[in-house]
Amino acid sequence: MKKILVLGAGLSTPSLINYLLQHAEEHNWQVKVGDYDVEIAHKRVKDHPRGEAFQFDVHNDEQRAKEIKGANIVISMLPARMHYLVAKTCLRYKRDMVTASYVSKEVNEFHNEAKDSGILLLNELGLDPGIDHMSAMQVIDRVKEQGGELFSFKSSTGGLVAPKYDNNPWNYKFTWNPRNVVLAGQGGAQFINHGMYKYIPYHKLFSRIQTISIDGYGEFEVYPNRDSLKYRGAYGLEDIPTMFRGTIRRPGYSRTWNYLVQLGVTDDSFVIENSENLTYRDFTNSFLKYNKVKTVEEKFAGYLGIDPESHDMYKLRWLGLFREEKTGLKQATPAQILQKILEAKWQLDPDDKDMIVMQHNFEYKQKDKFFRLISSMVAEGKNNVDTAMAITVGLPVAIGCKLILTGKIASTGVQIPTSKSIYDPILSELAKHQIVFKEEVKEIAGPNGD
Amino acid sequence: MKKILVLGAGLSTPSLINYLLQHAEEHNWQVKVGDYDVEIAHKRVKDHPRGEAFQFDVHNDEQRAKEIKGANIVISMLPARMHYLVAKTCLRYKRDMVTASYVSKEVNEFHNEAKDSGILLLNELGLDPGIDHMSAMQVIDRVKEQGGELFSFKSSTGGLVAPKYDNNPWNYKFTWNPRNVVLAGQGGAQFINHGMYKYIPYHKLFSRIQTISIDGYGEFEVYPNRDSLKYRGAYGLEDIPTMFRGTIRRPGYSRTWNYLVQLGVTDDSFVIENSENLTYRDFTNSFLKYNKVKTVEEKFAGYLGIDPESHDMYKLRWLGLFREEKTGLKQATPAQILQKILEAKWQLDPDDKDMIVMQHNFEYKQKDKFFRLISSMVAEGKNNVDTAMAITVGLPVAIGCKLILTGKIASTGVQIPTSKSIYDPILSELAKHQIVFKEEVKEIAGPNGD
Repeated sequence: MKKILVLGAGLSTPSLINYLLQHAEEHNWQVKVGDYDVEIAHKRVKDHPRGEAFQFDVHNDEQRAKEIKGANIVISMLPARMHYLVAKTCLRYKRDMVTASYVSKEVNEFHNEAKDSGILLLNELGLDPGIDHMSAMQVIDRVKEQGGELFSFKSSTGGLVAPKYDNNPWNYKFTWNPRNVVLAGQGGAQFINHGMYKYIPYHKLFSRIQTISIDGYGEFEVYPNRDSLKYRGAYGLEDIPTMFRGTIRRPGYSRTWNYLVQLGVTDDSFVIENSENLTYRDFTNSFLKYNKVKTVEEKFAGYLGIDPESHDMYKLRWLGLFREEKTGLKQATPAQILQKILEAKWQLDPDDKDMIVMQHNFEYKQKDKFFRLISSMVAEGKNNVDTAMAITVGLPVAIGCKLILTGKIASTGVQIPTSKSIYDPILSELAKHQIVFKEEVKEIAGPNGD
Repeated sequence: MKKILVLGAGLSTPSLINYLLQHAEEHNWQVKVGDYDVEIAHKRVKDHPRGEAFQFDVHNDEQRAKEIKGANIVISMLPARMHYLVAKTCLRYKRDMVTASYVSKEVNEFHNEAKDSGILLLNELGLDPGIDHMSAMQVIDRVKEQGGELFSFKSSTGGLVAPKYDNNPWNYKFTWNPRNVVLAGQGGAQFINHGMYKYIPYHKLFSRIQTISIDGYGEFEVYPNRDSLKYRGAYGLEDIPTMFRGTIRRPGYSRTWNYLVQLGVTDDSFVIENSENLTYRDFTNSFLKYNKVKTVEEKFAGYLGIDPESHDMYKLRWLGLFREEKTGLKQATPAQILQKILEAKWQLDPDDKDMIVMQHNFEYKQKDKFFRLISSMVAEGKNNVDTAMAITVGLPVAIGCKLILTGKIASTGVQIPTSKSIYDPILSELAKHQIVFKEEVKEIAGPNGD
């Protein structure tokens, strides 16, 4: 019997844990799930005969050592900053580890030691990062094998509400961490276009959007992500002249969101004086000039250059920016107050389902002809536990874990899933779970600009 | 004989050291000037019989102890972060200290110990902070004594080029640290207006300007400073409903500067790839969209919404943003490249003179009538050593030092010059050096808004 230790049982783990339990009998696994909140661990495992829930504190060195030593493989779904501790103990007891998080600098430094010990620390095996790497690398490797030369690669992902439940004027609901949505883009963005590095400051980010479309789902817009250049090395695209990563929203989102950025209410760097006693209207007014005559709405529209009768203004009013109700938040930053405003309006109802959208756009030259290949994936959630987010983050981790335990992945060291031996089996199994990329190839006149 | 120890002999010290040497015979002083660069210390002291220059390293504990112990009073004109070390040693040997810098948290913690030892650590005795505190407090105390109740206080300062030498399209030259000018305002601004806290994000700061005028000097504009509320306590204005601090420029500066902010080139948070081999034109282009057809100038004007034929566009072209010349700066941030561009065009020529402008605007109620009192000061530099900046920063420090040595200031602890016993004698002596505030009082209809 092999023992799988899952650390962390949060929102991204239901599909992961279900998969492991469903395959436990077949592979003779035992699945032990630890969380600081033991109740949530019980909720995931239920009374499955192959499962066990327990209270776990990653900072308890003795417990961490004991549990990791007692397992055959460790899946860390803890907050990203905690993976370092888990990895360290995995190294000590020579246990493989799988995570869905970005490789941190600290974890990366374990590479040589892990290689020497013959163990695998496999990271970035969720959705983004995860499925994005795997689905992109599958195309990149294939284009190269067929003698193609890539000159442009754009990749975007978004967590949205499924069309049937998309019923608010922003065409957006929170399907994940609201705070990340409020603070999105604050470092600005960098990418490369036609061989030129391009830089966009935060206050211009949401006005520099592109439009994409997906068969059966219509139009979307994309705003640039912080750093599009990070993976050129890992993808073997060191000299690609155009590379871009973005975040997907429904059309119009960025344009209206940009008004909030311009106003200054996404700022998380200072505390609003007397924040709990301000009404939302006062809060909005505190970013506007004093004026005896004009209403807050009039000042707002005038300052930001919005047509007061526009749909943008409707969307902003609909949020409740002008409501005469106290925030009730003590010592709050503007971003925290904005988050509270948004949470009241963008919440996912219990019956709502979420949706993940991912699209890659490759351009390449092959035998003196130019082609554009667009590869798109849409995943809808099943319910409010097996959300599209939980499925797309959790399943690749679970499948990766199975492949390691069954000896199908032989890699060692600190890895991300960019090699064929890892992404091929994972992507084929994901396809059985309706996580499928649809491809469309067209000949184009030549390298295109934007 | 009393020994004055001056630590640091940089650009802000010539008038300070001259004053001390000129008064040395009369008061039987010896003035010892130490700098890490002994040449600059010699340049300040020359061969004055009462002066002495020496090489000084603040991090040499033994030397610092010896020199401070051997002096009667210490003036620290070192970089602000070093005052802490000097203050610590002053406490140890019970020596008074004077600086022109903001009280740091570290220095502030010495207050009780200094009070108990009967020594004075007098800070913020330069221009801004310094003359601003003293000139404002003189009016505030007078208005209060006369039964007036202040409801608005706005205070602004600027370092500019004197009118005769004001010959570039920006009406601005660097008279002080260029880096501070490039990064100005990046934390946004906070102030209070009619009892409401107001917040302005960085990307809106240079569009939220006010206009002031000074007799004989014409119009100026003011953009908001980071934190206008810091001195409410020190000034005894805890409940004042309007308080604002700003920076003074010539009209049009902020509007054009704002285009650079909007473009993103004032950012100091990341390094531009391959920066040394980019031309200034490439640099500007790296903040603009790729476009096969349009010129960089056309893209720039279109993106920022500037009329290509406007004076703004002329000012931006004049800077050299579109020049085909390599930056030559390795590993540079956008702000560093912009600084190099500006330094080539905004340098103060050897014969140019600078100018300091300060204006306070007080509004108060007295016997049921409302008044506005405007108090303005303009100081022009004498030459490129005794600049207006050096005079206005250095003289208050020198005079303060004299008053302490002659027993006219009896305070102890960590202080700033907000009390009458300090500001009255300093302001009257500054007036003899043509640093004079001209006042203008008008009755107004009532509390005014903006």
